[in-house]
Amino acid sequence: MTSSRTSSGLAAARRPRRGLLLSASAVNGQQTLAERLGYPRDAKLVIVHADDLGMAHSVNAATTKAFETGLVNSASIMVPCPWLTEIAAYARANPQADLGLHLTLTSEWTNLRWGPMAPKDRVSSLLDKDGYLRLTETEAAEAADPKEVEMEIRAQIERARALGIVPTHLDSHMGTLYQNKALLEVFLRVARENKLPVRIAKEWLTRADFPGSSLSQNDVFIDRMITITPDVAPQDWAKFYSDALRNLQPGVTEFVIHLAYDDAEMRGATFNHPNWGAAWRQRDFDFFTSDAFRKVLAENNIKLITWREVGKLIRQ
Amino acid sequence: MTSSRTSSGLAAARRPRRGLLLSASAVNGQQTLAERLGYPRDAKLVIVHADDLGMAHSVNAATTKAFETGLVNSASIMVPCPWLTEIAAYARANPQADLGLHLTLTSEWTNLRWGPMAPKDRVSSLLDKDGYLRLTETEAAEAADPKEVEMEIRAQIERARALGIVPTHLDSHMGTLYQNKALLEVFLRVARENKLPVRIAKEWLTRADFPGSSLSQNDVFIDRMITITPDVAPQDWAKFYSDALRNLQPGVTEFVIHLAYDDAEMRGATFNHPNWGAAWRQRDFDFFTSDAFRKVLAENNIKLITWREVGKLIRQ
Repeated sequence: MTSSRTSSGLAAARRPRRGLLLSASAVNGQQTLAERLGYPRDAKLVIVHADDLGMAHSVNAATTKAFETGLVNSASIMVPCPWLTEIAAYARANPQADLGLHLTLTSEWTNLRWGPMAPKDRVSSLLDKDGYLRLTETEAAEAADPKEVEMEIRAQIERARALGIVPTHLDSHMGTLYQNKALLEVFLRVARENKLPVRIAKEWLTRADFPGSSLSQNDVFIDRMITITPDVAPQDWAKFYSDALRNLQPGVTEFVIHLAYDDAEMRGATFNHPNWGAAWRQRDFDFFTSDAFRKVLAENNIKLITWREVGKLIRQ
Repeated sequence: MTSSRTSSGLAAARRPRRGLLLSASAVNGQQTLAERLGYPRDAKLVIVHADDLGMAHSVNAATTKAFETGLVNSASIMVPCPWLTEIAAYARANPQADLGLHLTLTSEWTNLRWGPMAPKDRVSSLLDKDGYLRLTETEAAEAADPKEVEMEIRAQIERARALGIVPTHLDSHMGTLYQNKALLEVFLRVARENKLPVRIAKEWLTRADFPGSSLSQNDVFIDRMITITPDVAPQDWAKFYSDALRNLQPGVTEFVIHLAYDDAEMRGATFNHPNWGAAWRQRDFDFFTSDAFRKVLAENNIKLITWREVGKLIRQ
């Protein structure tokens, strides 16, 4: 069985859902996010964000290696995963690193699985028949009791903090928390209590498949996200990203990427799932640590920013 | 923090403990195990047993590769570990494989951790402050409530069976279940109910550091176990094993070995612990899949047997 994994999670939403209760402009007032961050209105600001830290040693090793280049500058951590303590040690040793939590309600690789952080008998709606988190975001969202989701994501945040991780932001692995209104409400409530920004793009707010939700004057949204999809052929990887950077619109854009090495561990984990698999992640690593990427950033006057900067707008 | 890992677990026992209530000969009667298995009294019978399946992809890959040679012919599985489902799929596809359960109450690698199978809030005596199984067998045994140990090892057996694993035997990761009488009693009770043989060597029964326990007429013990220790220099690996095979006494001997590749994943897991680390496991793999090993078996008239054969004595 393979995962229907999608990075934003929106593409997998089956039915159009009700729109937002507040428009984006009403939420954020007249100033753009770039202006609120102290940049000109036409600045091109990018967060280069690697997902899935903690999932595997290969992911941790490739992502922290990419951090050394300065070209990848943000990432988020999956707390229920087996290599959490390795990345927690990195976080403690590198307190300046822009590390968020990739809140996790799915366990999508058939050979490498993980369960919840909350006691299993208290979050049974999150588990498959084998006691792991479910394989796909649609299964997970359909079966999940929102109260149990809240207990689980609070447990993930608590565990991360106990290990010395000071998260700069929150996002949702495979977009499970964007699958319906009840889950999104839980996500936003927990994020607000923790005074952390969440991965929501302003452009999502008017999409029919984005669940309606009560947004607040204090919520902060980036302008857009860009992520590569399985329809891009491997040989077109660099072209896809370079074109996206050359055509970038002003505002805050997050490139959501997935880094790992194409090694035995990642091949073992993703053997039946080339999408977001080992070679895919090696291609992302190769492009985002390349001189070509550095050059296209400079040529297009693109400035890298972090979630830590965005989060200051909430905590100020 | 590093693990005080010992393979049999006996070396780490801190205090001498009371001896057995029954002597070995009283337990098994006059026939030797070799004779009960249908071999001559002077037969040299060996189980070549790889521990720690499920711990990492590297362990699974190296062990199943070694099975293909026929020279490694038994292994046991750690149910709480992240790569359990990969080895469960192998077990379902290879029902003849001699696979037991390596009952697990410790999580000894600082960068790669796992928790219990039972709900965490019901086995809290098994957990460290981070919610994982403890790092060392001595810490685990000292803190463990035997009732919670019983719940946990029953949960591990149940999960394995649910995934289609039909275990041929039981043993104890890092020997935690041999650390004191209460844990050994739990282990033996659960093993008897499941009609499965346990890894206990007859030679242990008279050792001062082996906990006293009530053994039954139906319990089956192999004669001895041989496992390499950190005092053997890497360049002496093949000599250690070859000498042990050349000097082998008659009866049933288990070689307890640890297979993996010396690759990025295993190096990441064992980075601060060369004992039982990545290079160690590669050396075990290299010897036990070698022509030199095959030759020394033939030259010394050593026959490989499995736990499945031993277990038939219990189930008949």
